[in-house]
Amino acid sequence: MRILLLLLFAFPTIAFAQTASSPRYVLVIHGGAGTILKSSMTPEAEAAYHAALKAALAAGETILKNGGNALDAVEAAVRVMEDNPLFNAGKGAVFTNDGRNELDAAIMDGKTLSAGSVAGVTTIKNPITAARAVMEQSPHVMLTGKGAETFAAEKKLEIVAPSYFYTESRWKGLQRLKKEDSLKTTLDHNEKQEAAVLQPGNRDHKYGTVGAVALDLHGNLAAATSTGGMTNKKYGRVGDAPIIGAGTYANNTTCAISCTGWGEYFIRLVMAKSISDMMEYGKMPLSNAANEMIHHKLPQLGGDGGLIAVDKNGNIAMPFNTAGMYRGYVKDGKVVTEIYK
Amino acid sequence: MRILLLLLFAFPTIAFAQTASSPRYVLVIHGGAGTILKSSMTPEAEAAYHAALKAALAAGETILKNGGNALDAVEAAVRVMEDNPLFNAGKGAVFTNDGRNELDAAIMDGKTLSAGSVAGVTTIKNPITAARAVMEQSPHVMLTGKGAETFAAEKKLEIVAPSYFYTESRWKGLQRLKKEDSLKTTLDHNEKQEAAVLQPGNRDHKYGTVGAVALDLHGNLAAATSTGGMTNKKYGRVGDAPIIGAGTYANNTTCAISCTGWGEYFIRLVMAKSISDMMEYGKMPLSNAANEMIHHKLPQLGGDGGLIAVDKNGNIAMPFNTAGMYRGYVKDGKVVTEIYK
Repeated sequence: MRILLLLLFAFPTIAFAQTASSPRYVLVIHGGAGTILKSSMTPEAEAAYHAALKAALAAGETILKNGGNALDAVEAAVRVMEDNPLFNAGKGAVFTNDGRNELDAAIMDGKTLSAGSVAGVTTIKNPITAARAVMEQSPHVMLTGKGAETFAAEKKLEIVAPSYFYTESRWKGLQRLKKEDSLKTTLDHNEKQEAAVLQPGNRDHKYGTVGAVALDLHGNLAAATSTGGMTNKKYGRVGDAPIIGAGTYANNTTCAISCTGWGEYFIRLVMAKSISDMMEYGKMPLSNAANEMIHHKLPQLGGDGGLIAVDKNGNIAMPFNTAGMYRGYVKDGKVVTEIYK
Repeated sequence: MRILLLLLFAFPTIAFAQTASSPRYVLVIHGGAGTILKSSMTPEAEAAYHAALKAALAAGETILKNGGNALDAVEAAVRVMEDNPLFNAGKGAVFTNDGRNELDAAIMDGKTLSAGSVAGVTTIKNPITAARAVMEQSPHVMLTGKGAETFAAEKKLEIVAPSYFYTESRWKGLQRLKKEDSLKTTLDHNEKQEAAVLQPGNRDHKYGTVGAVALDLHGNLAAATSTGGMTNKKYGRVGDAPIIGAGTYANNTTCAISCTGWGEYFIRLVMAKSISDMMEYGKMPLSNAANEMIHHKLPQLGGDGGLIAVDKNGNIAMPFNTAGMYRGYVKDGKVVTEIYK
């Protein structure tokens, strides 16, 4: 017994690892929320999503378990999903109305409240790494369009031809949606609901986004989000993903959050910061705050989607009000990936 | 007495007008914060700023006193300032590093939490009106760059040649700052402070932004912000003005806010939403919340600037931690404009 106690004092992190209520590190990821139904999924597709989520978790966990920081972990996890055409981010980004892939991403460091984001970029292979470069290598938080691409090139980030982001399934998704939209013009303002009923796959595509939040061994939180936006989007539309406080937020005194959903509603609700503030000023636990926003305030306005969050004590929340959300976490040695409700 | 009581019931707004503690309508505006010193201002320039602020207040008040809504009032007040070359917004926008004028604006309706914003636009005469069109005539919240310009043109908003935004004083401001920047490259990372000490006017230019917040006779709040951004900005940088929750926010249950300052810090703090949440979840009065953010959290991170706010009861806050902030308000029949501390 005396020897055990001595060991505990000599290696305090070992001691914490034994205690479920004091997690050493936590990583949570999502790969988008939407009308993701078991009935419209093949077993092969399901397995591919689980494998992709596990690969992203593994990339982040390798960093966290070796004492690396939360910022590196969320960037690594998101990069894996950006490189996988299954997700609407990076390689698998959806197409805009004029047949382009315009990517958005944001990252935030809960320790310093530093943040970086890029919006509307078309040539940066990993937008999340560009967002981090904005945070660490510029005096700015948000860079957009060609300017952001010039910055990324100057910082020697990997630049690709816009055609890198072409995938046949996303291209077909755009053509399908354009056809639907030309039909929808005769519908009334409830067209969104009706279109969703007609085409469940449609909303899945629309809400594709990837994200990661982490708590590291040093007690630091970080959040990262990356997206290809909405299929068929027009006019240089920017959603919630690259907006600090809306789709992405981290603060060591409260929590780290990454959102996925109908971006406009998340912006109007300033979703992520609201949850942090409900914890900080309203003294609410993470799960209550996250549920209040996703299950009450979001549907009240007419929006839907979900989010992942981890608080400074390692508590996890993954609420969504859609049929499914690709998600997973690593906590206390457990690796879990899930798709449906 | 009986007749008076009858009158009160018949015309309740008349009754409220008599009571100082129940203001009928309130309008607050700002024209930017920064190193605005009496010592560097001529009496003529000072008079011109006061006149410009009064003109903006008059445009908004005309709407409010006739029972118009807060949204119309803030848009009207901001348009007057956008059209006046004294302010860094619309006509008087500063120049980017590559000699362009890139404008940002946002508007938010506290009743519905609807919001609209445009970023990086170069051909829209009144960006605040484009932001309102995004809010009311599109399913989106934020449109950027050429896409936002296409949208504005489709909605028949006034489009101008980029040269409309040329003013000699802003062009000279860019040349001066470029010269300073080439000197500054030899300075360490404290260059910002040193540069500010060397060139007080510099920071004034950097923080120019205009904004308005209003409470109307119907109890609705609205906020609007418009800016030309930072002189010499690069890479498609976007500041806090067009970010809902950062530089612009309105919510009938709390307050309406428009910010001006070093945008990156306002984004990282999610400034405007933080104040609303401190009121909603922390039960703080507006002035305490606004002071906490501007006089503690903002300088703690190293930022500076100011904001204007009005709460649902008509209380006003106008804190800033710079030398001055162009500002003014209309409340209880009083019209006030101020520049220095």
